[in-house]
Amino acid sequence: MPAKGASVDADVIVVGAGVIGTAIAWRAALAGHAVIIVDPGGDDPRTDDKASLVAAGMLGPVSESVFGEQDLLNLNLHAVDRFPSFNAELERAAGRETGLRTEGTLAVAYDNGDLAALDRLTEFRHSIGLVAERLDARECRRREPFLAPSTRGGVFAAGDLSVDNRRYLAALRAAAAKAGVRTVRAAAAHVAVGRVALSGGGVLGGPRELTAAHVVVAAGHATRDIDGVPEAVRAAIRPVKGQILRLRHPTGMPHILTRTIRAIVQGHDLYLVPRKDGELVVGATQEERADRDVTAGAVHDLLRDATTAVPAASELVFAEAVAGLRPGTSDNGPVLGPVGDGRLIIAAGHYRNGIMLSAVTADAVAALLDGKDAHAAWAPFRPGRF
Amino acid sequence: MPAKGASVDADVIVVGAGVIGTAIAWRAALAGHAVIIVDPGGDDPRTDDKASLVAAGMLGPVSESVFGEQDLLNLNLHAVDRFPSFNAELERAAGRETGLRTEGTLAVAYDNGDLAALDRLTEFRHSIGLVAERLDARECRRREPFLAPSTRGGVFAAGDLSVDNRRYLAALRAAAAKAGVRTVRAAAAHVAVGRVALSGGGVLGGPRELTAAHVVVAAGHATRDIDGVPEAVRAAIRPVKGQILRLRHPTGMPHILTRTIRAIVQGHDLYLVPRKDGELVVGATQEERADRDVTAGAVHDLLRDATTAVPAASELVFAEAVAGLRPGTSDNGPVLGPVGDGRLIIAAGHYRNGIMLSAVTADAVAALLDGKDAHAAWAPFRPGRF
Repeated sequence: MPAKGASVDADVIVVGAGVIGTAIAWRAALAGHAVIIVDPGGDDPRTDDKASLVAAGMLGPVSESVFGEQDLLNLNLHAVDRFPSFNAELERAAGRETGLRTEGTLAVAYDNGDLAALDRLTEFRHSIGLVAERLDARECRRREPFLAPSTRGGVFAAGDLSVDNRRYLAALRAAAAKAGVRTVRAAAAHVAVGRVALSGGGVLGGPRELTAAHVVVAAGHATRDIDGVPEAVRAAIRPVKGQILRLRHPTGMPHILTRTIRAIVQGHDLYLVPRKDGELVVGATQEERADRDVTAGAVHDLLRDATTAVPAASELVFAEAVAGLRPGTSDNGPVLGPVGDGRLIIAAGHYRNGIMLSAVTADAVAALLDGKDAHAAWAPFRPGRF
Repeated sequence: MPAKGASVDADVIVVGAGVIGTAIAWRAALAGHAVIIVDPGGDDPRTDDKASLVAAGMLGPVSESVFGEQDLLNLNLHAVDRFPSFNAELERAAGRETGLRTEGTLAVAYDNGDLAALDRLTEFRHSIGLVAERLDARECRRREPFLAPSTRGGVFAAGDLSVDNRRYLAALRAAAAKAGVRTVRAAAAHVAVGRVALSGGGVLGGPRELTAAHVVVAAGHATRDIDGVPEAVRAAIRPVKGQILRLRHPTGMPHILTRTIRAIVQGHDLYLVPRKDGELVVGATQEERADRDVTAGAVHDLLRDATTAVPAASELVFAEAVAGLRPGTSDNGPVLGPVGDGRLIIAAGHYRNGIMLSAVTADAVAALLDGKDAHAAWAPFRPGRF
């Protein structure tokens, strides 16, 4: 346990108030640490610059790891295994629901090439002991009657989960606050062992620097902008822009999907994630850009692909189009572990898997703060690999 | 001139704070009347339930009147003739600009059928003394280089104007306020000669009824909901839903259009109206519905057609999608004139032409309030025709 002196502001300073930073802060506080989160948006739900808020909340360990990325697959499997118990504890602690859904994912194909790809995916899932059920077109449409008649077949992955990313982040913030986590609305300009220097703007009249026994950097793509993070880590992280849509069922319209749909439509990877409250998330673009503009072209492409896969989506209300910046890395894996003497910890680069990995990331950082090792699945993802 | 007794709240009560109602109120106040506007949204620019706020602000007298609607064409020509001087006076009075553009409209065609339709339109314009210039594809793209290569040809209408509908309404509201017009935030439930009964909600602690020498109903599609408006007029007015998009050039991107473009794309009428400030309005659906939901299908279709006509529109920022309810009528013409003894005046049903007709509507009502006749072009549009 870190020393708790009067000379420090907290035991742990977490830089970043997205799902990763907030999950870490909550678990650290539960473990008895005095925790401060530093974020330029504070914990204001209206500051929507978090990748966490632009996500769909799919928890699919296989579909998000490419063949050959065995280490990442292992980590994802560990993450999905852990998620439900973490989420249940979170819902109890926060006193609110996160919208976890357990109906699984149906991946659908529109031509023979897609079908062959799905068959390979099915074999792969079977080879690692996961359930995957090959369905013909008729069965796909029996289970999801609003799928386009052009559906050729599909694979049902019963084990995949999804969670409402916004409710999940709100629950984490509520639980963290109840556990005593304080939030300072400021940007971290520089981190070092034991201290975080804050940059101008948000802290008028506040401190210029915060001190703590441990500093955890969980600032997503912005991690690359923070001085004191090792150069190799900064260089490995890059923003990957994603645009998604939120559609909503008009009052009285039955929900058109009961589970997450994944499809390749005209070469584009598409997902449709239904929420219990009638929202349908459609995503997502992957763009090597750092702006957060929603573009006409992306909205068009997503709507074209969504209405191709599920024509009745045309009738849904267009509620929102948003863009976020995922924290990509040069090898697609997250970055987790101590740097230097262990009192500065990096937990970043979660790319498309931030929600799914948040629970095991929080567990891993809690272990590190306690002087223990993170779960073995994290071993390939230490900062020193770059 | 109406009697100005201490027993009435105003000389003129105008029901409706859209462009029609506000233009009428402004001109009536300029003529020396004490004027009150009654509207459930007040003059709050955030209340976006006005068709005026969802419009593109095109002022094209011919393209908005179908062949054979000679009366409407005459009125539109009168309206476009009057608009610039009215607008100039408005800008001076309000101390703000409305974004009037005079670069004309380019109508483009993608196939021989469209071209033939454009040729008929050109002949028609010539026959009524309007300028219209037939352009080949090369010349269309010379003038608008971002038009799709599939453009087959077009017609340039130099006389067409456009105005930024939101700036225009804001200027009308500013000018009306400066001229002493007061606004009461309440819905009109019932109108009668000399009085307007207000419905609940918005007027807690306020009056239940307002009295005036004249009452003008300019409530757009909601005119059909107001008791005291003649039943035949109420029955003739219906809401016609329109959805439009507002795109915006990213910082530093040159504007992709210099003038209004009209096109028929895959059978859909499309317009693209550029603003000086970098906005590009894309419209519009025409739906026989009374809801104001923005739908995924409409957004998709508008973006598909816009990017078909001008592929570079894909690169624009998707700023907004909105839906409004135009006040349609059973014969597509507006409704203007007194009912009963002349102290109750209807000015509604402007359908797609509210912005264009606002100036001459205000002139006409000012004349009626003064005991004179409206311009002859209004004669076919009296309420008694239904």
